[in-house]
Amino acid sequence: MKLTILGCHSASPHEHKNPTAQLLDIKGHRFLIDCGEGTQVQLRKSKVSFVHIKHIFISHLHGDHFYGLPGLVSSFRLLGREAPLHIYGPEGIKEALTLLLKLANSRTNFPLHFHELESKKSECVYEDDSVVVYTVPLDHRVYTNGFLFAEKEGMRRINADAAYAAGIDKSQFRLLQLGQDVLVDGDLVKNSTVTQNPHPPKKYAYCSDTAFLPSIIPIIQDADWLYHEATFLQQHANLAQQTKHSTAQEAATIARDANVQRLILGHYSSRYKNLDLFAQEAKSIFNNVILASDGAVIS
Amino acid sequence: MKLTILGCHSASPHEHKNPTAQLLDIKGHRFLIDCGEGTQVQLRKSKVSFVHIKHIFISHLHGDHFYGLPGLVSSFRLLGREAPLHIYGPEGIKEALTLLLKLANSRTNFPLHFHELESKKSECVYEDDSVVVYTVPLDHRVYTNGFLFAEKEGMRRINADAAYAAGIDKSQFRLLQLGQDVLVDGDLVKNSTVTQNPHPPKKYAYCSDTAFLPSIIPIIQDADWLYHEATFLQQHANLAQQTKHSTAQEAATIARDANVQRLILGHYSSRYKNLDLFAQEAKSIFNNVILASDGAVIS
Repeated sequence: MKLTILGCHSASPHEHKNPTAQLLDIKGHRFLIDCGEGTQVQLRKSKVSFVHIKHIFISHLHGDHFYGLPGLVSSFRLLGREAPLHIYGPEGIKEALTLLLKLANSRTNFPLHFHELESKKSECVYEDDSVVVYTVPLDHRVYTNGFLFAEKEGMRRINADAAYAAGIDKSQFRLLQLGQDVLVDGDLVKNSTVTQNPHPPKKYAYCSDTAFLPSIIPIIQDADWLYHEATFLQQHANLAQQTKHSTAQEAATIARDANVQRLILGHYSSRYKNLDLFAQEAKSIFNNVILASDGAVIS
Repeated sequence: MKLTILGCHSASPHEHKNPTAQLLDIKGHRFLIDCGEGTQVQLRKSKVSFVHIKHIFISHLHGDHFYGLPGLVSSFRLLGREAPLHIYGPEGIKEALTLLLKLANSRTNFPLHFHELESKKSECVYEDDSVVVYTVPLDHRVYTNGFLFAEKEGMRRINADAAYAAGIDKSQFRLLQLGQDVLVDGDLVKNSTVTQNPHPPKKYAYCSDTAFLPSIIPIIQDADWLYHEATFLQQHANLAQQTKHSTAQEAATIARDANVQRLILGHYSSRYKNLDLFAQEAKSIFNNVILASDGAVIS
């Protein structure tokens, strides 16, 4: 699991402060999460191949999470993309993209699938053999979802040396991976003697933008990584409340109570020059905190 | 008259290749012309005060000329703008901006006036005491206008030393500026003896995007500066024709036949590494050519 922070600042973009966008590499998938203005340039800077992005998850339709999407879709078209593109986001996202394409008198030469969200309860929005994605309903000024990206449990891992020593033929490896015991010349070889448990499945929870919202805790419980917005410090808790954003302390409280492994903070208001204060404030509640920064890769 | 090139590249933005946007300072006005993705960051880099931009002219609704506008309008709002903003562009621009604002559940706290264009003939879209702006209908894949920004003739310039020497009182200067002769102790002082002609009014013609289109020549005739797109070199004239763009040679032909003073080229296709070839090709037709580059200031 690898997370690339393309942008982690709130509101208006500045030269070295990009609005929100992240790229999650998980089980062979490359998921784009939010797409503020300038995301395509950030992708190019990170030398990410555009064509491998097949699913884009948009939390809400504020500009700093969304206004890079029309340009990215347009660039996909210019690059001759043929692979289908799936876009998950609030109701209205299809109307907006479709109108912009129509006004440009252009159509995508690849299938563009919209998955419009309107539920206020967590729901599964994507699933395949290796990964499942759930929404995390948030509390912001417009309809907003975070997303939980969860690996599925993998297969048992074969200790090949032990398996061959026990006389097991490679043709039986699939059975071992599935957890079955196998017969060798009539003798039963116990699965546990030649395999190890699968790698524990990873979970990444992305929560932006939101007011302090303890109801998300059961959904994101035990996640390996939690990205939680921290637009403000506690000294501006009143602003956080008014604008339905969180403070670093609130983000850390969610991280602690959800028992996550690591908290990643971002979405800083441009009023703060010293971002270390976010880490300091959060660490008074929850120790394993890192600050997102544009271009950072977390793995 | 001062022109700041915020972006001069075609199609997808890259780290150091911004899509089209220009800022024209003329007679105390600051006009924004086109607004590709990333324009607000380019404005910040150029240290331009956002609040002085009161009129935005959008040539057409392709992303590389337009997708920075929603974010810029949104930033105006976040910055607490109160001054009215006028946006001139193709029919549909109001619907697009209005939908994006609605989806973000936000409204501007300043008056937002749309001036939607649909005429295929040149028309006056803005006029005040000092400046007039006309459309320059172009030939592209969607409805597109260039713009001609023309200063009005100013007042006669007083030679103050000569005027005082002739005994003229400062209270009569306004009459001199208006070209009138004045009486000093019963004697007529001829205007021309104490004033000079006004500065010749300047004209800037902006033409992007377009196929080679000689019908614009009467509209842009004798302009001081002509920005004309040159997406391709002549070796790719077939691509220019297919995509309704121009070559450097075609842009230079327009410049020569319209008798402009200076030709500014831009909107280069990303296929060309050596942009000097654009200047070379154009100079075989028209000598006074400069290549636009992001961040350049022309005055």
